[in-house]
Amino acid sequence: MNYLGIDLGGTNIKGGVVNEAGEILREASRPTHVEQGPDAIADGIAALIRELEQGERFAGVGLGCPGTVDDEAGEVLCAFNLGLIHYNLRDAVRDRTGYELRIGNDANVAALAEAKFGVGRGAHSVVVITLGTGVGCGVVLEGKMLVGYTGAASELGHMVIAEDGAPCTCGRKGCFEAYSSATALIRMTKEAMDAHPESALHEIARENGGVDGRTAFDAKLRGDAAGTEVVRNYVKYLACGVTNVINIFFPEIIAFSGGVAKQGEALLEPLREEVDRQEFGHKYVKKRTRLAECTLGYRSGVIGAALLANQN
Amino acid sequence: MNYLGIDLGGTNIKGGVVNEAGEILREASRPTHVEQGPDAIADGIAALIRELEQGERFAGVGLGCPGTVDDEAGEVLCAFNLGLIHYNLRDAVRDRTGYELRIGNDANVAALAEAKFGVGRGAHSVVVITLGTGVGCGVVLEGKMLVGYTGAASELGHMVIAEDGAPCTCGRKGCFEAYSSATALIRMTKEAMDAHPESALHEIARENGGVDGRTAFDAKLRGDAAGTEVVRNYVKYLACGVTNVINIFFPEIIAFSGGVAKQGEALLEPLREEVDRQEFGHKYVKKRTRLAECTLGYRSGVIGAALLANQN
Repeated sequence: MNYLGIDLGGTNIKGGVVNEAGEILREASRPTHVEQGPDAIADGIAALIRELEQGERFAGVGLGCPGTVDDEAGEVLCAFNLGLIHYNLRDAVRDRTGYELRIGNDANVAALAEAKFGVGRGAHSVVVITLGTGVGCGVVLEGKMLVGYTGAASELGHMVIAEDGAPCTCGRKGCFEAYSSATALIRMTKEAMDAHPESALHEIARENGGVDGRTAFDAKLRGDAAGTEVVRNYVKYLACGVTNVINIFFPEIIAFSGGVAKQGEALLEPLREEVDRQEFGHKYVKKRTRLAECTLGYRSGVIGAALLANQN
Repeated sequence: MNYLGIDLGGTNIKGGVVNEAGEILREASRPTHVEQGPDAIADGIAALIRELEQGERFAGVGLGCPGTVDDEAGEVLCAFNLGLIHYNLRDAVRDRTGYELRIGNDANVAALAEAKFGVGRGAHSVVVITLGTGVGCGVVLEGKMLVGYTGAASELGHMVIAEDGAPCTCGRKGCFEAYSSATALIRMTKEAMDAHPESALHEIARENGGVDGRTAFDAKLRGDAAGTEVVRNYVKYLACGVTNVINIFFPEIIAFSGGVAKQGEALLEPLREEVDRQEFGHKYVKKRTRLAECTLGYRSGVIGAALLANQN
C-alpha cells in the first residue's frame, strides 16, 4: 500500500509517493501560485496527484501546510502566506480527485516522520524544533501527533520565556521564537557587530555576502570574542526553551532541524552543557532526554504527510 | 470492581475505596510518620490497606505522592518531604499486602480524576493547575496522563516565563511557579504593603491574622488601589503561563485548584480577559479553551490514585 504525501509551501507544492517503510518511491513538485487564489492552489494539488498517480490508486493522501488546520473539518483555518483563510481543502481536493485529504500542520507532520522513520525511530516520544525564520515545533507522544482540542497545539515557539521581552510576530513579547529563530540569531549578530567594529563578524559577513545564521558560529571558530558571546547568548535562550520542553514533556528525544541546526555539534554541544545546568532537580531520574539532529531533511514534510494519511 | 486509591502526603496517608463510577465508598486516614523512615511509611500504607479491605479484595491499588516517581519500576525516585529517595514502594507494599501498587505523581493523578469524574468529564483534554505553596500541574490528553519518557513530565510550574527573573525553589529563575503560586502572591502583597502604608491591605492582614492568598483580593473588593494592582499584576503573570499552556497543549479545559483558586470568578474573570488579550493569533480557530475551577476538591487525590490502578 502506498500513500501520497504533499508538502504545501508558499513557493512549491512537493509530492512524494511513500510506501509503508517510509521510503519515497517517486516525487514531483510544481509552483504554488498563491497569487491566483485558493482554488488555483487546489488545482495545483490535484494536478500533482494526477502526475504522481501513474495508474496507481493511493491508499490515502495527506498534506502538511503552514499555519493552523482543522483536520476533522478538512479545513485550513489560516495560512497567511498561502492566502488561505477558512478554506476547506478537503472538499476542494475531493471534488477534483475523489481523494479524502488528511491535513496537518507542516511542523507537526514533519515531527511525525522523524518520530517514525527518522531520528526518533523506536523512541517513546519526540519533540522536533525547527530553528528557521521562526521556531516551528511538532510533538509526537507514543506515536501520536499532539494537535490538541483545536488542531492548533504544539506551538512551542510561542511559549513566552522572557515576559515583556523581545517582540514576536504573534503579537506577544518574549516568545521562544523571538530568541531562538535564525531571525533572532541574525538580530543578535548584527547588534554585536554594531557594538564591536573590531570583530571578525564584519569580515565573515563580507565574505558570505551578508549576515546569516552561520556568521556568529564561524566567528566563534576563529576565536572571535564578540562572535563567541553571540553564540553563548543564543544558546542560553535556546537552552531555556529546551529545558522548559523537558520539564513539560520529558520526551525521549528533542531533535533540531532548520538553518541553525546545520551547525550540528557546534550547536548541540554547548546546548547540552547549558541544559544540564538549567535542568530542574532531575538528578534522581535515571533516564535523560537526548538532544540530536533530525535525519530526514526536506523529506520529513512529504513522508509525514503520507503518514498522516496512514493514521485512523 | 472496587479500587483502592491512596493519597500519600507529608502529614497524612489518606485512603478511599472507589468504585467504577468514581464514587468513594469508604475512606480512612492515618499519620505518615516520615520521621521513622521509608519502611514505616510502607507499614502505614499496608495498615491502611488492611483497615479498608474489610474482607474485600481490591481489583487494584494506586497511590499518588509528591515528587518524582517511576511507575514502571514501582519506585519513588525522590519525594524530599517524605524522605523517600530511590525507594521501591511497589516491592515494599507487595511484601506487606500482596498488592501490585501503581504509583503516580499526586498532581498528575488528581488531574486524571478531574478529567474523568470532575470538571473535565467528557472533555477531549484537561490541564489542572494547582495554585498552592507551589504550582502543581497535571496534563490528561484524551484520557491519558502525560508522564513522559521518565515519569517526570507535566512540570509546567517549572516552565520559565521570565528569563533571569524571580528565583524558584528548583534552582532556575523566572519559573511560572515563582510568579503564580500562593507563595508568590503573598510575596507580591507584602511588597505592595511596604510601598503603600496607606493601603487597606494592612488592615485586612491584621483582621485575618496575617497576609495570605486572599488579602489582595479582599482589598480589591474594598476598592483599594494597591490591592487592585497586586491582583492585576498576579493575573498578568498567571495569564502568561496559561497562554503558554494553550499554545502548547490547546486543551479543552484548563482547571484550577489550590488556595488561590478558591477566589473563583474573582480570579477567573480577569484571567479570561488577560488570556484573550495574550492569546496568539487564534481568531481563526473556532474552538476555545475553557478556564474553570476543579470540582472534586481533596477527593481528586484518592479518586485519581484509584483510577491509576484501573489503567493498563
